[in-house]
Amino acid sequence: MRNDPGRLRFEITNVDGGARAGLLHTAHGPVSTPAFIPLATRGAVRTLTASEVAHMGFELILGNTFHLFLSPGAERVAELGGLHGFMGWERAIVTDSGGFQVFSLAHGNVADEIKGRRGGSGSGGGVIEIGERGVAFRSYLDGSKRFMGPEESMTVQAALGSDIALVFDECTPYHADRDYTARSTERTHRWLDRCLAWHEANGPLSQAVFGIVQGGVHDDLRRESAEWVAAAAVDGLAIGGTLGRDKSEMHGVLALTAPMLPREAPKHLLGIGEPDDLLAGIELGIDVFDCAVPTRLARHGMALAPLPDSRFRFDVDRAALARDERPLVEGCPCPACAAHTRAYLHYLARAEPANAGRLLTLHNLTFLERLVSGAREAIGAGGYTAYKEAILGGAAPWGAVATPY
Amino acid sequence: MRNDPGRLRFEITNVDGGARAGLLHTAHGPVSTPAFIPLATRGAVRTLTASEVAHMGFELILGNTFHLFLSPGAERVAELGGLHGFMGWERAIVTDSGGFQVFSLAHGNVADEIKGRRGGSGSGGGVIEIGERGVAFRSYLDGSKRFMGPEESMTVQAALGSDIALVFDECTPYHADRDYTARSTERTHRWLDRCLAWHEANGPLSQAVFGIVQGGVHDDLRRESAEWVAAAAVDGLAIGGTLGRDKSEMHGVLALTAPMLPREAPKHLLGIGEPDDLLAGIELGIDVFDCAVPTRLARHGMALAPLPDSRFRFDVDRAALARDERPLVEGCPCPACAAHTRAYLHYLARAEPANAGRLLTLHNLTFLERLVSGAREAIGAGGYTAYKEAILGGAAPWGAVATPY
Repeated sequence: MRNDPGRLRFEITNVDGGARAGLLHTAHGPVSTPAFIPLATRGAVRTLTASEVAHMGFELILGNTFHLFLSPGAERVAELGGLHGFMGWERAIVTDSGGFQVFSLAHGNVADEIKGRRGGSGSGGGVIEIGERGVAFRSYLDGSKRFMGPEESMTVQAALGSDIALVFDECTPYHADRDYTARSTERTHRWLDRCLAWHEANGPLSQAVFGIVQGGVHDDLRRESAEWVAAAAVDGLAIGGTLGRDKSEMHGVLALTAPMLPREAPKHLLGIGEPDDLLAGIELGIDVFDCAVPTRLARHGMALAPLPDSRFRFDVDRAALARDERPLVEGCPCPACAAHTRAYLHYLARAEPANAGRLLTLHNLTFLERLVSGAREAIGAGGYTAYKEAILGGAAPWGAVATPY
Repeated sequence: MRNDPGRLRFEITNVDGGARAGLLHTAHGPVSTPAFIPLATRGAVRTLTASEVAHMGFELILGNTFHLFLSPGAERVAELGGLHGFMGWERAIVTDSGGFQVFSLAHGNVADEIKGRRGGSGSGGGVIEIGERGVAFRSYLDGSKRFMGPEESMTVQAALGSDIALVFDECTPYHADRDYTARSTERTHRWLDRCLAWHEANGPLSQAVFGIVQGGVHDDLRRESAEWVAAAAVDGLAIGGTLGRDKSEMHGVLALTAPMLPREAPKHLLGIGEPDDLLAGIELGIDVFDCAVPTRLARHGMALAPLPDSRFRFDVDRAALARDERPLVEGCPCPACAAHTRAYLHYLARAEPANAGRLLTLHNLTFLERLVSGAREAIGAGGYTAYKEAILGGAAPWGAVATPY
């Protein structure tokens, strides 16, 4: 671990069992943790403006190095004020490394696979060659040949000007065997060192770098990786790669891995963010979470709701809703719940899907923001276990938060 | 003309040449005129919430009888609080009659044709039969046989609970010959009488009814129609049907038709709303305008701008914008112009079209709202001609309006 408060200071303000609340002091202001990070993959949270995202209370968003590298290009974003200026977002930004996406081209849809669902097409996607130096691939936009390795990823992230950069890694999928995962994790470690060397020589002074712990579902590989990354000059740690085939295995691997990481380090659990996963991660000392689920669910007509028996999901398309005059989720302060009935949202999902998708995006992000802000309050009051159990028992996460917007 | 201030009172507050400013007092509050009416075709302005539309300053929106009749159905909307309650809009609503849409099924895309561009496929679309009683057609949603005539249209509009209903008419296309237009206009007059009879016996007491003047591009037919409609017990008049092949013919037909209508009547020019058309219509005493152009342009990456030589359109897709750090339109108070650069909007139009379409919708509606509020101010100050000439010369419509939102 590096310790440079000039580029990132993590202040743990409250501890409650394994959970903690804190403040991540970035170059673009503090981020209260535990935090959920909305995805601004292509420089925008889909259907929302930057000011709406800030208004909901989010202090940190995630931009995508791979997509922004291909369009509009890192130099263009740098010219236009960096990612903050480009998209009009004044708070903190973390950028992923692009590793997840370039390897997705080879592994198939890694997004599904890190949760254990095998989805790869096996066709190799747009990958031309994977080697020690990095990954050569074809752009999905124009078929042009592009290359990304550790130095290229850090160069792009430096140009984007994110507050937190993530090192270039391979996100190992669930279907990879132990041998592949071991070799991949070792290469990821060599890439970590190259990323840090590049950043030390060329990176923006105020940009923090998080290392990524890989190792798949293998306890010993996770331990080796945790030790390697913690020994490096990183400002924080992320947990990447597959954690298992199902929630139970995922929570198990997480329960083994999280305690291997230095207590004082800010910790990012990559790509995980369903309500029960957030609650489990927070209990294990995870500080920030990003996930496509809330926005993707919204596009498919699903609202997050205090329904633990239905994976916290409420299907707006259910025929029974056509005459239901209740709000989508009682008590939720989001614009969808505050102003509209289930019947109207059910109708909109078919008649005006753009409107429905936007309203459900506002709702789902509000739900998760309230879930983590409730967790912060509970940790501060020493009641995190009770809070977690209440949510897992079907309580709404906004009980303690009084101000609607 | 009927004169029942209990269901609609039109107060002319200022006159400036042929133009006038006024207040249309509806059951859901006053509407300052001249006004532009955003389309909430299926019970929502696409990509916007009702509160955003109100926040922009609009006091009247248009709901579509044909679409809401097919889904979710008039009874369902009535059950759910009428169209106001259903969509969460507390201000005034006008509903069109559905005539435009059911005849579109026969005439092809009447939206293009009323401006003279022949677009009909000639296949008859989903129309089964057009007769004196009304139009039988197949639903585009499920192929079911449906019927709409004057009584059906008024029944649906009564259930929707709009503040202003429009009578069921045939919107004659430009390619219709004089003989067809004459016979169609006579039938529209018989339908007007049936609409009023139904409404007198069954309509909501607070719902006003506007008659529609047809007659195509034929001076004598327009005059006959204007006289017929003005003699009926309507609360206001709308001008429908084709006005000509191009802007010049359109403005000519409008200049002949508008003065045929009673001065004291509120006047709605149907389906017309480009900036120069608004300015010409206002000069001729038109009070309200609805048009799909601002929202449709937004979906196609076009912003309204003070560019009279380019039909007031600014193409966000132009390559030169990729590095342009200026706001979309200097001085515009909309969220797109206030927070973002041309370069970002140009990028979003390709990378996140849902976000770009929404921002451009906010912009285009703001542009037209400022255009008509500027006109109201100018009329109040006796300077409408100068205002019109300034806008046609490239002035921005928000000069006089200081408060951004």
